[in-house]
Amino acid sequence: MTASSTDAHSTLIRAGFIRSAHSGLYHMLPLGRRVQDKLEALIDTHMSSLVGASKVALSSISSEELWTKSGRLNRVGSEIFRFKDRKDVGYLLSPTHEEEITNLVLNSTKSYRDLPLRLYQISRKYRDELRPRQGLLRSREFIMKDLYTFDYNIASALETYRQVRQVYADIFDELKMPYLVADADSGDMGGNLSHEFHFPTPNGEDNIISCTSCDYVANEELAENVAPTTNESGKMMSDSRTVLQPKVWRGVSRDRNTLVNVWYPPSSSSSDRAEINLHAVKSALPDFDASVEDPLAFWAQSSSAVAQNKSLQIVNLIDHRLSRLLRQEIELQSPQLAFWPKQLNDPPSGIAMEALSRDLITQRPLDLLRIKDGDPCARCASGTLRVQKAIEMGHTFYLGTRYSDPLNATVTVPRHLLQDADLDSNTTIEHEDLTLEQKVPMQMGCYGIGISRMIAAVADNLADEKGLNWPRVMAPFEVVVVPARGLDDAACEVYDVLSSHHQPRLDIVLDDRAESFPWKMRDADLVGYPVIIVAGRRWKDERVCEVQCRRLNVREERHLDQLPAFVESLLNKL
Amino acid sequence: MTASSTDAHSTLIRAGFIRSAHSGLYHMLPLGRRVQDKLEALIDTHMSSLVGASKVALSSISSEELWTKSGRLNRVGSEIFRFKDRKDVGYLLSPTHEEEITNLVLNSTKSYRDLPLRLYQISRKYRDELRPRQGLLRSREFIMKDLYTFDYNIASALETYRQVRQVYADIFDELKMPYLVADADSGDMGGNLSHEFHFPTPNGEDNIISCTSCDYVANEELAENVAPTTNESGKMMSDSRTVLQPKVWRGVSRDRNTLVNVWYPPSSSSSDRAEINLHAVKSALPDFDASVEDPLAFWAQSSSAVAQNKSLQIVNLIDHRLSRLLRQEIELQSPQLAFWPKQLNDPPSGIAMEALSRDLITQRPLDLLRIKDGDPCARCASGTLRVQKAIEMGHTFYLGTRYSDPLNATVTVPRHLLQDADLDSNTTIEHEDLTLEQKVPMQMGCYGIGISRMIAAVADNLADEKGLNWPRVMAPFEVVVVPARGLDDAACEVYDVLSSHHQPRLDIVLDDRAESFPWKMRDADLVGYPVIIVAGRRWKDERVCEVQCRRLNVREERHLDQLPAFVESLLNKL
Repeated sequence: MTASSTDAHSTLIRAGFIRSAHSGLYHMLPLGRRVQDKLEALIDTHMSSLVGASKVALSSISSEELWTKSGRLNRVGSEIFRFKDRKDVGYLLSPTHEEEITNLVLNSTKSYRDLPLRLYQISRKYRDELRPRQGLLRSREFIMKDLYTFDYNIASALETYRQVRQVYADIFDELKMPYLVADADSGDMGGNLSHEFHFPTPNGEDNIISCTSCDYVANEELAENVAPTTNESGKMMSDSRTVLQPKVWRGVSRDRNTLVNVWYPPSSSSSDRAEINLHAVKSALPDFDASVEDPLAFWAQSSSAVAQNKSLQIVNLIDHRLSRLLRQEIELQSPQLAFWPKQLNDPPSGIAMEALSRDLITQRPLDLLRIKDGDPCARCASGTLRVQKAIEMGHTFYLGTRYSDPLNATVTVPRHLLQDADLDSNTTIEHEDLTLEQKVPMQMGCYGIGISRMIAAVADNLADEKGLNWPRVMAPFEVVVVPARGLDDAACEVYDVLSSHHQPRLDIVLDDRAESFPWKMRDADLVGYPVIIVAGRRWKDERVCEVQCRRLNVREERHLDQLPAFVESLLNKL
Repeated sequence: MTASSTDAHSTLIRAGFIRSAHSGLYHMLPLGRRVQDKLEALIDTHMSSLVGASKVALSSISSEELWTKSGRLNRVGSEIFRFKDRKDVGYLLSPTHEEEITNLVLNSTKSYRDLPLRLYQISRKYRDELRPRQGLLRSREFIMKDLYTFDYNIASALETYRQVRQVYADIFDELKMPYLVADADSGDMGGNLSHEFHFPTPNGEDNIISCTSCDYVANEELAENVAPTTNESGKMMSDSRTVLQPKVWRGVSRDRNTLVNVWYPPSSSSSDRAEINLHAVKSALPDFDASVEDPLAFWAQSSSAVAQNKSLQIVNLIDHRLSRLLRQEIELQSPQLAFWPKQLNDPPSGIAMEALSRDLITQRPLDLLRIKDGDPCARCASGTLRVQKAIEMGHTFYLGTRYSDPLNATVTVPRHLLQDADLDSNTTIEHEDLTLEQKVPMQMGCYGIGISRMIAAVADNLADEKGLNWPRVMAPFEVVVVPARGLDDAACEVYDVLSSHHQPRLDIVLDDRAESFPWKMRDADLVGYPVIIVAGRRWKDERVCEVQCRRLNVREERHLDQLPAFVESLLNKL
């Protein structure tokens, strides 16, 4: 049984791991701090297997000036905590460090000989979430491991990307919990290659699509539907869904000048946003801004500025499932379809209207709806798709020159080490002579793991009705020794023998608090120590303890001599 | 030779430990990060020797609401980074965590049985310094270890204070560098028992007073002058200093309603602020605010608000060194002394003027000037005082009920465990019956060590013309192995032998970068590794290396078999 996410969060509080400080802000108490330390140490260990990765600690504060230069300040501005210092200079609490690390590296890295460079940190990040929720899962202050890589050409950057993905797999393997690696969208990070690491859980906020037959896994934004052919879309005219009035979902462009109407057949789903594949909308209309939840508020502001000569427009995107008749109606901009949002006043003159039912480049009919359980797989002929709720734990991005280009982070590289693809349109080709050096922007990657988020997700995933459960590598202690009533000295002896006996040392704690035995046992279950050793009645005469392990459903007695090996064998499975 | 502080800071940058990000904000590069890690591990080790101390991690963000409750928001407000979230709620970046930790503890601690409680963290703190300077010495983001202790009566709180002071001494002893422990003022922290841990250095911003004869050490604010008697002050009439016109230094009260004029004889010192003993001023006038550098700006604002019926006043404090004549003149408020600051317009009517030449309580003549080198010691009869420049590294405060009282952090304690002093005027005595329990505010202490500050101070203290020098416990690596030209394989072998041979393991790094031997040796000196091992010409045939240690002025050759013991013997002195 999996406890609900709210339960896992309140269990973390009840068991003394975290405490709520302010909305979306948490204090880590000693137990939580130990879990965090374990996870950080695990990540440090694996990072050290990535050749040349060094640990740094960048300031949590960045400047508005730098983020304006990269163009991100206004794009993700509403989620950023911003403030002025006493000299009225604008700063922000960094949600991520692409700008700062690029700025740092460009000052010391001039030649391809200094590359590859791989820098990571584990630090607090900040995001002023619209709706902080589920404790550490979506908090406004969070701990993240972020790695940034710098290479001098695309080929080596992709090799770096491959190596990091392997290290990530190694880290997630250590938790001995099922996880998914999904093709993902790069979103505001830029770049064009991206994967997400997810824990499947009914309480997840993301949907991961996987094929029951082939190895295709993608997040919902990126997952491909079977491409509709003209025939198929013709056939769908008879679909009962298309008989009804079409539904409309609205979005807005990044520059706020274009209102996007997405027309699609009605279904049973309650929320419009849940039905629309935002990635498909973006792919049809690259300037579309998927992050805006209330587009009319933004576009309405623009429309009031029509007098300022802005070129406002409405684009109607028409899903292929709509009947040809409706499609034509929309394409002809028939007035009864109420293109003009009711919430606004009468349309001002001079607003351009456009209708699209095919992708402008591929000329394929538009498929704008999300995948549902049982849809056919686009990759293999035979499989059907499964939609799983999941929590995102890690994300890898190949950034390319998204940040190195605007921040002018270049290195000189001998021309013969560069392919044509490494020389994009912005690069001035200085030398055709292959023996000479060429100045190119560095190829970057960035790679995150949510530390505090993972604590919450693991708690959620493994909690049962008695309390939390931790994988060995994240447990605050691997083993707790609990004395039965009046057997405190016995427990001390077990603790001492176990601590001194074992190599490598077990991480053991002795519960010597002045509480009753049943209280201690309930607390041990609540905290979720992987292994509980009870020093009970059979200790004194026989040196026998009871060993409990809830996850493995183990409750067995063992003689002291067998204890270390038995405990180790249990821990190896957790 | 000690490099100047500016030099040590630029050496830290040049050697690749830190990088400037923005004004008063720094990134820790891999070498700096390692030094920080070492220092944090050292502190963790010693904290674990403090019975019951647990490590937590409080949010870096606190709320204006909580700081208003404690009364600190407005008192230290100008140094705090403040911001609003998207819901317009006021937050701040915590410079310290008394409010948050008290709030955290009061929710879970109800009985004296839960005490003593000792919680510490190592985390980033923030202060919007008026003039950030000297790199990590006075930065706007800094790493601090802060410990908070909670006891149920004064006696146990003082015992806690004693234990922590001992742990602090143990930590500072590990650096094997001279340090001073000075009696200190509690400042804005509240409480009445406080000590500072300082490194003496010509580049320090603080002045520490110590007696050449007895063991008296105090910071300048708290250091006692020999109390002047009436006779002595009478004798001083003939002092040549008093013939001249008196000088005036101005301050302002916390409520901004009182302008403080300090009258004293002129001397050779250039800056007025440097001459005045602000603690003595505060002791004569408890509401005096020592943190204000431009009092007229604040008081002038108040005086423009006279119409609003504020009771403005001017208090003239008169140092005992001034001649009786001048004293009388000031006491009589003779107009030619220009009590009214020239910078302001004509005095409005209704401003009360007062003159004090004696302490109101002790009736002793006021001594308002700072101690100078050679002044007599107030504690012992024979000694003279020495003034040393120093950098503050740590601070211990006995807070009493400064925070537990306003935040209502109380515990129930049996009446027989409480002395009269534990029951202050704010405590409602519930039971005269000694067998019953009484609700009292917890007795707190707080204890800080500046981690990033200590990195800068140690760098400043030990740097020489060749570069940095680190104590063993803080060095990024204890030993570097540098290959002479063409001897990379030899260096690898030395590295392997040393790493595998030694127990406990030495923290060694091999410089295998593609640079020249002289460049590597200069860099090794610049970085300041305690021990440098050169794999040179005598390696191949004789297995002999050169061992260098700049701080101990050692440059000796040793056979591989003797190497580990010899290196260890050097490190033990560093």
